[in-house]
Amino acid sequence: MCGIFAYLNYLTPKSRHEVLDLLVNGLKRLEYRGYDSTGVAIDSPENKDIVMVKRCGKVKVLEDAINEGFSGKEYDAPVMTHVGIAHTRWATHGIPCETNSHPQRSDEGNSFVVVHNGIVTNYKDVKTFLEKRGYVFESDTDTEVIAKLVYHLWKKHPGYSFRELVEQVIQQLEGAFAIAIKSKHFPGECVASRRGSPLLVGIKTKTRLSTDHIPILYGKDDKSPQTCEKEHRPHGQTRELPVLPRIESASEFMPLEEKEVEYFFASDASAVIEHTNRVIYLEDDDVAAVRDGTLSIHRLKKCQDDPHAREITTLKMEIQQIMKGNYDYFMLKEIFEQPESVVNTMRGRVRFDSNTVVLGGIKEFIPEIKRCRRLMLIGCGTSYHSAVATRQLLEELTELPVMVELASDFLDRNTPIFRDDVCFFISQSGETADSLMALRYCKQRGALIVGITNTVGSSICRESHCGVHINAGPEIGVASTKAYTSQFISLVMFALVMSEDRLSLQQRRLEIIQALSKLPDQIREVLKLDKQVQELAKDLFHHKSLLIMGRGYNFATCLEGALKVKELTYMHSEGIMAGELKHGPLALIDDRMPVLMIVLRDPVYVKCINALQQVTSRKGCPIIVCEEGDEETKSFSSRSLEIPRTVDCLQGILTVIPMQLLSYHIAVLRGCDVDCPRNLAKSVTVE
Amino acid sequence: MCGIFAYLNYLTPKSRHEVLDLLVNGLKRLEYRGYDSTGVAIDSPENKDIVMVKRCGKVKVLEDAINEGFSGKEYDAPVMTHVGIAHTRWATHGIPCETNSHPQRSDEGNSFVVVHNGIVTNYKDVKTFLEKRGYVFESDTDTEVIAKLVYHLWKKHPGYSFRELVEQVIQQLEGAFAIAIKSKHFPGECVASRRGSPLLVGIKTKTRLSTDHIPILYGKDDKSPQTCEKEHRPHGQTRELPVLPRIESASEFMPLEEKEVEYFFASDASAVIEHTNRVIYLEDDDVAAVRDGTLSIHRLKKCQDDPHAREITTLKMEIQQIMKGNYDYFMLKEIFEQPESVVNTMRGRVRFDSNTVVLGGIKEFIPEIKRCRRLMLIGCGTSYHSAVATRQLLEELTELPVMVELASDFLDRNTPIFRDDVCFFISQSGETADSLMALRYCKQRGALIVGITNTVGSSICRESHCGVHINAGPEIGVASTKAYTSQFISLVMFALVMSEDRLSLQQRRLEIIQALSKLPDQIREVLKLDKQVQELAKDLFHHKSLLIMGRGYNFATCLEGALKVKELTYMHSEGIMAGELKHGPLALIDDRMPVLMIVLRDPVYVKCINALQQVTSRKGCPIIVCEEGDEETKSFSSRSLEIPRTVDCLQGILTVIPMQLLSYHIAVLRGCDVDCPRNLAKSVTVE
Repeated sequence: MCGIFAYLNYLTPKSRHEVLDLLVNGLKRLEYRGYDSTGVAIDSPENKDIVMVKRCGKVKVLEDAINEGFSGKEYDAPVMTHVGIAHTRWATHGIPCETNSHPQRSDEGNSFVVVHNGIVTNYKDVKTFLEKRGYVFESDTDTEVIAKLVYHLWKKHPGYSFRELVEQVIQQLEGAFAIAIKSKHFPGECVASRRGSPLLVGIKTKTRLSTDHIPILYGKDDKSPQTCEKEHRPHGQTRELPVLPRIESASEFMPLEEKEVEYFFASDASAVIEHTNRVIYLEDDDVAAVRDGTLSIHRLKKCQDDPHAREITTLKMEIQQIMKGNYDYFMLKEIFEQPESVVNTMRGRVRFDSNTVVLGGIKEFIPEIKRCRRLMLIGCGTSYHSAVATRQLLEELTELPVMVELASDFLDRNTPIFRDDVCFFISQSGETADSLMALRYCKQRGALIVGITNTVGSSICRESHCGVHINAGPEIGVASTKAYTSQFISLVMFALVMSEDRLSLQQRRLEIIQALSKLPDQIREVLKLDKQVQELAKDLFHHKSLLIMGRGYNFATCLEGALKVKELTYMHSEGIMAGELKHGPLALIDDRMPVLMIVLRDPVYVKCINALQQVTSRKGCPIIVCEEGDEETKSFSSRSLEIPRTVDCLQGILTVIPMQLLSYHIAVLRGCDVDCPRNLAKSVTVE
Repeated sequence: MCGIFAYLNYLTPKSRHEVLDLLVNGLKRLEYRGYDSTGVAIDSPENKDIVMVKRCGKVKVLEDAINEGFSGKEYDAPVMTHVGIAHTRWATHGIPCETNSHPQRSDEGNSFVVVHNGIVTNYKDVKTFLEKRGYVFESDTDTEVIAKLVYHLWKKHPGYSFRELVEQVIQQLEGAFAIAIKSKHFPGECVASRRGSPLLVGIKTKTRLSTDHIPILYGKDDKSPQTCEKEHRPHGQTRELPVLPRIESASEFMPLEEKEVEYFFASDASAVIEHTNRVIYLEDDDVAAVRDGTLSIHRLKKCQDDPHAREITTLKMEIQQIMKGNYDYFMLKEIFEQPESVVNTMRGRVRFDSNTVVLGGIKEFIPEIKRCRRLMLIGCGTSYHSAVATRQLLEELTELPVMVELASDFLDRNTPIFRDDVCFFISQSGETADSLMALRYCKQRGALIVGITNTVGSSICRESHCGVHINAGPEIGVASTKAYTSQFISLVMFALVMSEDRLSLQQRRLEIIQALSKLPDQIREVLKLDKQVQELAKDLFHHKSLLIMGRGYNFATCLEGALKVKELTYMHSEGIMAGELKHGPLALIDDRMPVLMIVLRDPVYVKCINALQQVTSRKGCPIIVCEEGDEETKSFSSRSLEIPRTVDCLQGILTVIPMQLLSYHIAVLRGCDVDCPRNLAKSVTVE
């Protein structure tokens, strides 16, 4: 949610047109993170001022505005060194409008302009503090306090460097943020920082980089290296700001000093990969500053075990992975990628010749995990559903209690966690705020942390003790599809690893491993239902509601299907546990309520048929998802979708795909933007 | 679901009119269990035939039909001994229509007629068996196979008694049932049996009963008294029926032999309380038969520890408890009873003078419970929500892992259960089929079973090791209201008992106990919002959807509120975890989607305000439920409901009441029958 992008060219001449193109292009890559409004800030050609363009709506609107508004020759002239910042917004505070768009500014003179991803939870206190000092706010955003607070400090401490000012500011902020700031008083400089929200720096040079590590410079006055816990500050207090210590230099590593260099600050790698594959992932409370072409990273306090430098890593992503190809939408491309993405998830892990499974990233921890009190699977949205989908198999193959938890509820409840718990955190982006906070909560209490993410280098990935990369490849569509099936398979593989030496389970394991080998082809079969699903969508798209019912292994498909429909089509859709029908939801059924039921030949078949009869007794006309050739089940309805037979615990992978396609087609028929559903954004980095 | 009622008068003369009145009245008391169709069967005045009346719809329709159709004098003549059976149906197999109504008959001559509550899961196999032998079925019900199978056996074994025939039949049935059967070949006799569904026998005599125990007569050929496990029968098999052993007599107890006696067979006590307070609760696989005025109870096999007799118990229920009083609907009466029902739940348990809590029914088991691995709370529908509502407090005060489970899903998953687990089963009726089966599943695995029910003598009540009666009084409205708040308080009391000797929790306990003492008055305050809620209902009732959002202690209120709205109004309503908003449901929000948000001053207040801002940012206009006088929160919306402040963990009791009222008023405005929502029935005794 919210994408930030900044571009700094140092001694690498670029015209303002080129800079704007680059910024707009960066925003397009980040658009999935929010598309309520957009904005850019660059140096004005005429004077030492900053010029901003902000627009409601998607990046295209901004692009058109720029093409119309910046036609003068002065935009063609090359500039040796320049800083531009850009933003695509997912509104949290204040409705989507130009005034609430980013960059937010410090004053009418644009002294400081800020792009921000996250929520500053104490913004009201800071606002009150500043208002008392005469600052007048123009927007409803939490972000504006950042710009105005930098400005306030700059006026108070004229001798401070840009970086020092930002260090002072972030000490005053609570909540989550990733920010990039530009100032007309510090031309050619850019300062960025993060806490909770993701941020990386891409580095592009013509020659090889002079170093692979950027030193971290720590604050001088650090008296207590052991305890870096956050200072408690009573709510609502607007005391005077303390002056913070200056930063000293650590000398083991050479700073990055390049003659000609370009820097990219971005919320994620997809925005920089077309320029460079050399990036640094910033950590919470890092302040990254570029001055005279030199990048330095600063932290206020050094804790024990804190490293001396941040490593520059090389991205393995390919640019075509983040392009749409021949598909109209990323989501559709990602749905159709699933025969390959599930193979990538299993690659090098499941050996079909020897019927064995190895998870390198978790292997050493298996004995410890086997001794645990219970497994907890924690996630949000679709990731949570992958936990629901695999819970039963995990219970069966690990013979341990398995709990699944929504990260937000888990935190709300202050759930008791014990040293012998094993906690899984499932998140496509690896940056989901609630999941990350739950991770830290569990880690603090001594639990073993296992990360299941799709993003190498993400926060969850880095803060876990061990984990599984699901290797689904970049997922751009806001509605998660291939990440779900890959998360699903990752958890199945984990269950298989856990049961490796249980003799009584060998037959079951074999059955599952053999079924996994057939899965890619079966997914291809299911994808052939596309046309049929499109026809069903034509029946459904004008309705207000859709109920998706099932139980057992397929209940997660109902939840996930309903979520997809909600996200993409804005229809009120709900996943209903078929076993609960008689306890209330059956009242919704009549001859007009659209219902979809999943009825497969598994251990709950008879119960599902009971539910189906209850629905048809009430004149309901459900669409049935059943197994290929199951004429008996099909006979209950005129509309059905047949999917190939697989082992019960993997059915959910095959049944979810028609749901993905259905939500897609309904959305297209309703004229919704599939890749950019209203009000949403990918990678929820705020609580 | 489905109510069965049978009336047998032996040597106590009654006219057929009186019998019909009595049957219809019994059905009215059971109407909450189903109201799709009704029917009665009595002896015909003209010949030795049976006459039936069946009607679609509610009991009133049947009553009118009887008043019109049976006007002859012959109906006024007294009959010395007579058997009548009656039924009110909640359709599961076959749409509601006269042919599918009960009693179901064996043949056109009405040789045997049956009323049945439950689902015979293997009815297709039995049907095939009978069809092969020339029987032609007229209905789509599962019940018809029972009538036809008795008839088939009667023709085959002409020497068998009525009771022996029924014993043969129930051996062939799988699934759940309570049945009562009448036959023209056995005048003055009635045979009834149950498995899974509830059934009791009421006994009325002019003088004191000759015994307090009815002996159980066990089958003769029992070779293996230790192992009474069910014989496994492959699916789909239609083998010839085995001939079963005859029954021998146990002699310790005197049989019940009365000169003049009336018997009532009913699904629950509310149907018999106006006639007698002396009842026997039948157990699974009991066959109860009345012949020559003598009641006998039969079982095929005796297991170790099986008792020699069934006790006759005395009901403590009062007739006015099951009357509507001045209210239009039972549900409304029950909502307004809550200030008293919560007091009844706490009576004799919470001592406000000494700030102590004692739960007599559980006291001795507390040390064992404290040593457990985890607490599991299992229920369906509203009962499940009471578990969700109290989970956090249980986690806090017991410091144990607490899992909440939907009974159906719990069973579907074959959830691992350990000897050191403590499993709570929550059910208003104590007969909910899924919960009862889950109970047996857990009991078999050695877990400690705690029942939380509102019905003394119910199956869950009897099969638990210990438990809490919630004492909310009879709940007739199909949508549960007062049972929910009493279940809630029962679980809170349990948490208080568990933390009695934890020094660090004393302050918290005190706070909760004092809040409990204020609760009845605060509920009265909340009930005063009735008019305001009615006004809000006028804004909402024409909408198609309603989203109810909250988190933390109030999430359960969202689920329960949405369930009430679904049940009563047929609007598609959904409870949404506010923390999940950004992961999908926010896409539903625009200026037209009705939203209700619960935002109280508790530990999740700031997060709720964030959610509220996200909703208002998207032009949503939520109705806010907030604390009395919280102007800041109210300022976010033009519509709000203010409720009194209480301790965080009890808020859910006060916030759920406006939801109950709201669903009620919307239902009335939409013209729905509040006490008899379509498609539903109370006490779900089938899976």
